[in-house]
Amino acid sequence: MSRQRATAFVPGHVTAFFSAHPAERPAAAGSRGAGVTLTDGVTVRVSAADEAGASVAPGQPTEPVGPRTIDGEPGTIGAVEDVLAELGVRGAGDGRTIEVAVETDLPIGAGFGVSGAAALGAALAANAAFDRGRSENELVRIAHESEVGRGTGLGDVVAQARGGVPIRLEPGAPGVGDLDGIPATARVEYVTFGELSTEEVLGGDTAALSAAGEDALARLREDPRLPTLMDAARGFARDADLLVPEVAEAIAAVEKSGDDSGSDGDDHGAAMAMLGRTVFALGTGLSDAGYDPEVCRIDAAGARLVER
Amino acid sequence: MSRQRATAFVPGHVTAFFSAHPAERPAAAGSRGAGVTLTDGVTVRVSAADEAGASVAPGQPTEPVGPRTIDGEPGTIGAVEDVLAELGVRGAGDGRTIEVAVETDLPIGAGFGVSGAAALGAALAANAAFDRGRSENELVRIAHESEVGRGTGLGDVVAQARGGVPIRLEPGAPGVGDLDGIPATARVEYVTFGELSTEEVLGGDTAALSAAGEDALARLREDPRLPTLMDAARGFARDADLLVPEVAEAIAAVEKSGDDSGSDGDDHGAAMAMLGRTVFALGTGLSDAGYDPEVCRIDAAGARLVER
Repeated sequence: MSRQRATAFVPGHVTAFFSAHPAERPAAAGSRGAGVTLTDGVTVRVSAADEAGASVAPGQPTEPVGPRTIDGEPGTIGAVEDVLAELGVRGAGDGRTIEVAVETDLPIGAGFGVSGAAALGAALAANAAFDRGRSENELVRIAHESEVGRGTGLGDVVAQARGGVPIRLEPGAPGVGDLDGIPATARVEYVTFGELSTEEVLGGDTAALSAAGEDALARLREDPRLPTLMDAARGFARDADLLVPEVAEAIAAVEKSGDDSGSDGDDHGAAMAMLGRTVFALGTGLSDAGYDPEVCRIDAAGARLVER
Repeated sequence: MSRQRATAFVPGHVTAFFSAHPAERPAAAGSRGAGVTLTDGVTVRVSAADEAGASVAPGQPTEPVGPRTIDGEPGTIGAVEDVLAELGVRGAGDGRTIEVAVETDLPIGAGFGVSGAAALGAALAANAAFDRGRSENELVRIAHESEVGRGTGLGDVVAQARGGVPIRLEPGAPGVGDLDGIPATARVEYVTFGELSTEEVLGGDTAALSAAGEDALARLREDPRLPTLMDAARGFARDADLLVPEVAEAIAAVEKSGDDSGSDGDDHGAAMAMLGRTVFALGTGLSDAGYDPEVCRIDAAGARLVER
């Protein structure tokens, strides 16, 4: 039956390194690479609006029909609208419009895959709320295609669906792409210095970037461990010439702090989140270096419906 | 670095229906089908033994070297020993042997995939404790091969690795098999009436069983929803002639109780766990029918390392 209301949680995802793989077909487009999914993430609630709206008018299928909020303020996300259109969720069927509430503690546009998370969360929640009867793979594909179509990301959705520390072996949606993962749990710290435009970087020449990403992936496949992930991430940011000054400074500060303490523990240095003015570290590297980071953990579960 | 100690949790898995697909290569052998993973599961702790054992003697590679317990009592699981041997975990490298402690609230031999969960948990924990540097897919493959090799299961390991409500589209380990899932969360109730030998059923003629399993899978792929899963499971148990009397009685009692209450809610009847003398229901079907079931939920995360 249709519950007319459902909520999904999707972990944030910081990409450590990647190579871009455009394709005609959005399901086949994507990226190779690796990253870390976070217990800090995006919650999406999809429901029939409390009151009947101005009826569900015909119009552009991706034009929002009903209230849309991001952290309580009016706001829409293109990929979310495309997901709802693809699922045929335009109204509750009783004259009521559809309400979509996106909530996140993560900074937006800073390399945490918030748009992909919102798209995937909307897919899971809309499917459950309005009983669309799609499988998990289908919902991941729809969210991936919507994200790729909007040019806001290439690999976040499939990584967020899996959870943990996903390795994207082959680009694309389920049935096309292929994933593995580093089996690990860890504390994650991050500091954000501001936004960086994914569209701008992905819209430019990505040949050098992709070569560096393929090198990093080959290293990680040889040795799927967290220290190698972080080291490959630093090498990628350098080789792809993506490092921004605040992040480079933080990475150096974490390295110096680790050397000074002589620690050989769980800290594997810091790296830049692709693509954002964000530095992240596993363990306590950023706090040890005197930063005041946000703290969460690697998310074990991946995207999921939650009871709310 | 090597922590010499790690713990993994792996959800229980009740198979709703399946078809058996033997193959020469254990990674390619497996089953198609679907089931439900449970927040009730198996916790496996792998560590260097507290005291040096009688040294790590040479011998059969799958002969236990060090203490082995199941719920605190001495006990070994064949697939766990095969996993440790495959990972080369024979001793802590300092004269100490390896301790493996398996703990579970689930009944053993009753259709919850406890042996597969123990194998997968041992793979994750041993890899982390002794820094074997294997990827998630490799660890799932090793556990799957060990389980198939021992003849104790065909599809539990890959389902338990994924979590949720896994649909096994193609048999086999990661890189060979293929999975999808029903995107759903629900309360799960179960009652166990005793053991049923997986080896005996899987060792017999499985042609009729597999035909029924393929029919059930085709139905579920057409409509990947929980009510269809439960209905296909009941059809499978009937067609494959696997229903045991206590379970048949419970399924009928749940159906009658649902009819009497006129409920059209979250209850989709009960079904038999393959392969065990176990009945399970989503929602409150078994309690409504007067049984005193164990209660848990669908596990969203799948197998994972935990902090202990």
